[in-house]
Amino acid sequence: MAVYTDVSDEELVTFVSGYDIGEVLALKGIAEGVENSNYLLHTRTGHYILTLYEKRVDPGDLPFFLGLMRHLAARGLSCPQPVANRDGETLGQLAGRPAAIISFLDGMWVRRPQRAHCAALGTTLAEFHLAGADFAIRRPNALSVESWRPLLELSLDQADTIGEGLGEELVREVEYMEANWPGELPSGVIHADLFPDNVFFIGEKLSGLIDFYFACNDALAYDVAICLNAWCFEPDMAFNVTKARALLNGYRSVRGFTQAEFDSLPLLARGAALRFLLTRLHDWLRVPEGALVTPKDPREYLKKLRFHQSVETAADYGLTA
Amino acid sequence: MAVYTDVSDEELVTFVSGYDIGEVLALKGIAEGVENSNYLLHTRTGHYILTLYEKRVDPGDLPFFLGLMRHLAARGLSCPQPVANRDGETLGQLAGRPAAIISFLDGMWVRRPQRAHCAALGTTLAEFHLAGADFAIRRPNALSVESWRPLLELSLDQADTIGEGLGEELVREVEYMEANWPGELPSGVIHADLFPDNVFFIGEKLSGLIDFYFACNDALAYDVAICLNAWCFEPDMAFNVTKARALLNGYRSVRGFTQAEFDSLPLLARGAALRFLLTRLHDWLRVPEGALVTPKDPREYLKKLRFHQSVETAADYGLTA
Repeated sequence: MAVYTDVSDEELVTFVSGYDIGEVLALKGIAEGVENSNYLLHTRTGHYILTLYEKRVDPGDLPFFLGLMRHLAARGLSCPQPVANRDGETLGQLAGRPAAIISFLDGMWVRRPQRAHCAALGTTLAEFHLAGADFAIRRPNALSVESWRPLLELSLDQADTIGEGLGEELVREVEYMEANWPGELPSGVIHADLFPDNVFFIGEKLSGLIDFYFACNDALAYDVAICLNAWCFEPDMAFNVTKARALLNGYRSVRGFTQAEFDSLPLLARGAALRFLLTRLHDWLRVPEGALVTPKDPREYLKKLRFHQSVETAADYGLTA
Repeated sequence: MAVYTDVSDEELVTFVSGYDIGEVLALKGIAEGVENSNYLLHTRTGHYILTLYEKRVDPGDLPFFLGLMRHLAARGLSCPQPVANRDGETLGQLAGRPAAIISFLDGMWVRRPQRAHCAALGTTLAEFHLAGADFAIRRPNALSVESWRPLLELSLDQADTIGEGLGEELVREVEYMEANWPGELPSGVIHADLFPDNVFFIGEKLSGLIDFYFACNDALAYDVAICLNAWCFEPDMAFNVTKARALLNGYRSVRGFTQAEFDSLPLLARGAALRFLLTRLHDWLRVPEGALVTPKDPREYLKKLRFHQSVETAADYGLTA
């Protein structure tokens, strides 16, 4: 639940007067996102999201995030789109924070994704990768393989409180990844956080993607691997190959996998599981006392990691060569 | 910030299918209200507020609250209006909670109310009192004079941590109120919590009243007294008689004060200050460790209480007989 910065009626009216979107009618803080303050803004011309970027976001990254959304929307991908003010700028300043007005995207996230949702996700993810191909700004992936050792070191002394021998297991896993991580896969802009709560549907129809604040440049197939982890396990952590096949075939119907991508998929999926395991472990061990937001249990991703360790080829995910 | 109960996409679609408001397009938790979970609901027919009533609300009171909103809206008062489902019911059940869909009211609350806002508030408050006159359901004021002694007793042992001698001062004040509280004033439905955040404006025009969850039957002038406290003090706690005069004259332009109301106003304002002082004191002394919501400082209302103790007649509030 996120409204960290209060916006007064007077400040808001002044800020919105710099845009060509009509008189302010209403503003409601919305309980969404953990990095920023988000408001639903109603004006005479429609509904918008007003985002105030809080301390956890590097202002230097905002041209990448906002530019990417405009770039994708201009290429027909359905996603929130930053609104330019009268000076043509999408980034402004409100209540002492960098701030942007972004179009409102209809849709709901699906708590229990089905095969059809996974198929639609695969298709849209590939469209996203193609649409991002000619985006000019670059942003390295700060949470890729080289970050995993320092990230693990922050949690190492307490890792065994989660499971006996976990620390040692993760050290070995990080070493394995450092030794084997593929270097030369087709790369481009990836979303890097395409969990179900960032994909909107109206009925079974995918209505758009949101939350591009982890987007970066990395291997495209790594984005697919993140989705396999986030969408294709059942609540009991059993891997659902039917959903995975739907996701992968949906993707392939728009953008084919290279042989190197096919060969690397199990390793990428295993690495993606490790990446979310490490950040969740870090957050889990640092819950502030009395915090209202419960961090996500890292053990979920430990189970997923172990599953991928047992996978031999992408065929085990339902993908035929 | 309030979203206590999560509503899944599937539950929501089922719930909304009982209403004649079209397909669900979006749902966003909103950070507003402290008693209930509130969502912004977008459907093919428009925008609504979906409220889930949490434990702090007595379900037995919901017919009063929802019925009152319908009653007031039917009499032309601008306020959120519960939507009836296909069975004609405004109260349903969602995610294990009593739930209602309520029309979306445009407007923003004013952080720094000016004279014109106070005048508009006075007028609308009187219209509210007239519109509520023939509302059939009754609800006693659980926070009136007879509740103040038991409420104070809950905080008495720690009251002096807020200010030396505060406990004793409040005991004397409660005794004074019990001995002098007026019994026979014109009464009816009062809002009982008409602070600036419950009154919406678009520009200087009052667009409506919200949050009727403290509404009850009590002396109408007591509602005016609550507003004098909530709207007519400056940040340094100086009483602004210009704003008070605007509020009272706005009220009187729609509904005149009786002589008894005129005579009682200082006592009612003093009692209203005591009532908010006591609830704030109670909440202040019971902040859960690590709580994200800071309770309001009770000392603000101590200063207001002392001001009203010094008032001799309603003329000191700017009201001429």
